[in-house]
Amino acid sequence: MAELSLGFVGFGEVSFCISSGLRDEGLSGICAYDVVLGSGTLYEENLRKRANEANVILCDTPEELFRSCKVIVCAVQAPYAGHAAKSALSHMSAGSLYVDVTTAAPAEKERWEKEFQARSIYFADSAMMGPLTINRHKVPMIASGCGASLWQEKMVPLGMKIDVVKGPAGDGTRIKLVRSVFMKGLGALLVETFLLAHRSGLEDVVLKSISATVDQLPFEKTISRMLGADMIHAERRAHEVAESIALMETLRLKPVMAAATKERLELSAAMGLKDELAGLAPKTIEEACSVWDRKNYR
Amino acid sequence: MAELSLGFVGFGEVSFCISSGLRDEGLSGICAYDVVLGSGTLYEENLRKRANEANVILCDTPEELFRSCKVIVCAVQAPYAGHAAKSALSHMSAGSLYVDVTTAAPAEKERWEKEFQARSIYFADSAMMGPLTINRHKVPMIASGCGASLWQEKMVPLGMKIDVVKGPAGDGTRIKLVRSVFMKGLGALLVETFLLAHRSGLEDVVLKSISATVDQLPFEKTISRMLGADMIHAERRAHEVAESIALMETLRLKPVMAAATKERLELSAAMGLKDELAGLAPKTIEEACSVWDRKNYR
Repeated sequence: MAELSLGFVGFGEVSFCISSGLRDEGLSGICAYDVVLGSGTLYEENLRKRANEANVILCDTPEELFRSCKVIVCAVQAPYAGHAAKSALSHMSAGSLYVDVTTAAPAEKERWEKEFQARSIYFADSAMMGPLTINRHKVPMIASGCGASLWQEKMVPLGMKIDVVKGPAGDGTRIKLVRSVFMKGLGALLVETFLLAHRSGLEDVVLKSISATVDQLPFEKTISRMLGADMIHAERRAHEVAESIALMETLRLKPVMAAATKERLELSAAMGLKDELAGLAPKTIEEACSVWDRKNYR
Repeated sequence: MAELSLGFVGFGEVSFCISSGLRDEGLSGICAYDVVLGSGTLYEENLRKRANEANVILCDTPEELFRSCKVIVCAVQAPYAGHAAKSALSHMSAGSLYVDVTTAAPAEKERWEKEFQARSIYFADSAMMGPLTINRHKVPMIASGCGASLWQEKMVPLGMKIDVVKGPAGDGTRIKLVRSVFMKGLGALLVETFLLAHRSGLEDVVLKSISATVDQLPFEKTISRMLGADMIHAERRAHEVAESIALMETLRLKPVMAAATKERLELSAAMGLKDELAGLAPKTIEEACSVWDRKNYR
């Protein structure tokens, strides 16, 4: 019996990657349960192969898993996370830890945490912040909720990378989702920009120009500058982006991000802040947020 | 008579800001012509006041302007740039310099350059890369075309900031328009991200997380990494952004940039590169561009 009794509810890609990584760190006795067990399907067959490969013990029922493990990681598909939590709640013992790594809705996780707390079970919402297949158990994670520190204490010695953030369960997932709007948007924006640059034969000069601008300031400063400038210059910028869109159309490129940029700038311009602020942009993120609140910006 | 005989065709905001800046640098004898002259309208009255303020001599006809100045800056509204170029072409003398700072279409500027070159007149396409009202004549500009170096040589001693880029007239404007897709998109993306972060009560942690990621690498490296990763991870990312969009909707925020991100990711995913490249992302921008060409990506 391992010192840490760890169990996975749902044994798909996430559980397989993390458990095989932890096995390589020397952790034994990892358990798992998945609804396909007993179905006699090809899914079950493949799952048993993977469990065998990762040296994971399969439990016949969820009750068996929840009763025999002090730390449960829930890695089912998001729509089934509520069902898994409810089942765990009935069978786990006080003092144990339940960690939800699904992408279930933040508000739901916040609600579940309260139910677990009411039965003295620690609950953590832990969001994965990078690709799992490459990083396996070392995928960067953030964790929030009353069980976040316990989850970090137990797993970091086994090579996991867990940052605890203050706030209720739900916040871990919320941070991931907000961050994704930016990080994935940045990727999509770069793709569209360099597709246009390339078709214009200008990728080198555009690369240097954009990089120089971004590298010029710590990004925190760029953020606060841009949030403020948007309030003053949105209308003019919307017109300028229209010219970029016209260029994309002559090259038969689809202005997806550029069209959205124009729309978002028009929404900003409609706040009418240029005149109201007399051309003086807020200098901090806090100030910008309070202007958004006052204008009920959406 | 000043050493540099400089004239503006079109005396609107652009010409006024630049000429008043150059006057403060000690340049005298600046001339200008505008179509409103002789109209007897309020526009003409205001224009004459501004010309007086900037110490600019107004010419009665375009011919007079084009014949008396060795350097002509065209700053009319974009739809009239072609007309101005044609008129200049008939009246300017060989060896003189015509600089188009309008936002007329790059392909048009490229065409005009050839006509000017055929009459031995230098032509430069010079794009403004920042706000004019604050910077006046010191607004950062890029210039391309056969007259770009001459434009730089003549004006940099007077405080102007002109970067010459290789390539025909048209490229200056193209670089500006491509750059705008990114810079204005980045602004709009930050606005939408921090609007969501703020409404989730997470602006501080999101600020730190995003800044740390962007500041971690020189931006050139981030760009090439992201262009390659897009080819492998677009499909998964589109699903992840859908979760962010769901969160925005629960907060009644409009997912403008996020919806476009999802659409662009779906276009990338439709190339089917994940399997074709066997999960191996291109490492350079050049490689990524050649994959786009092969797939005729739009």
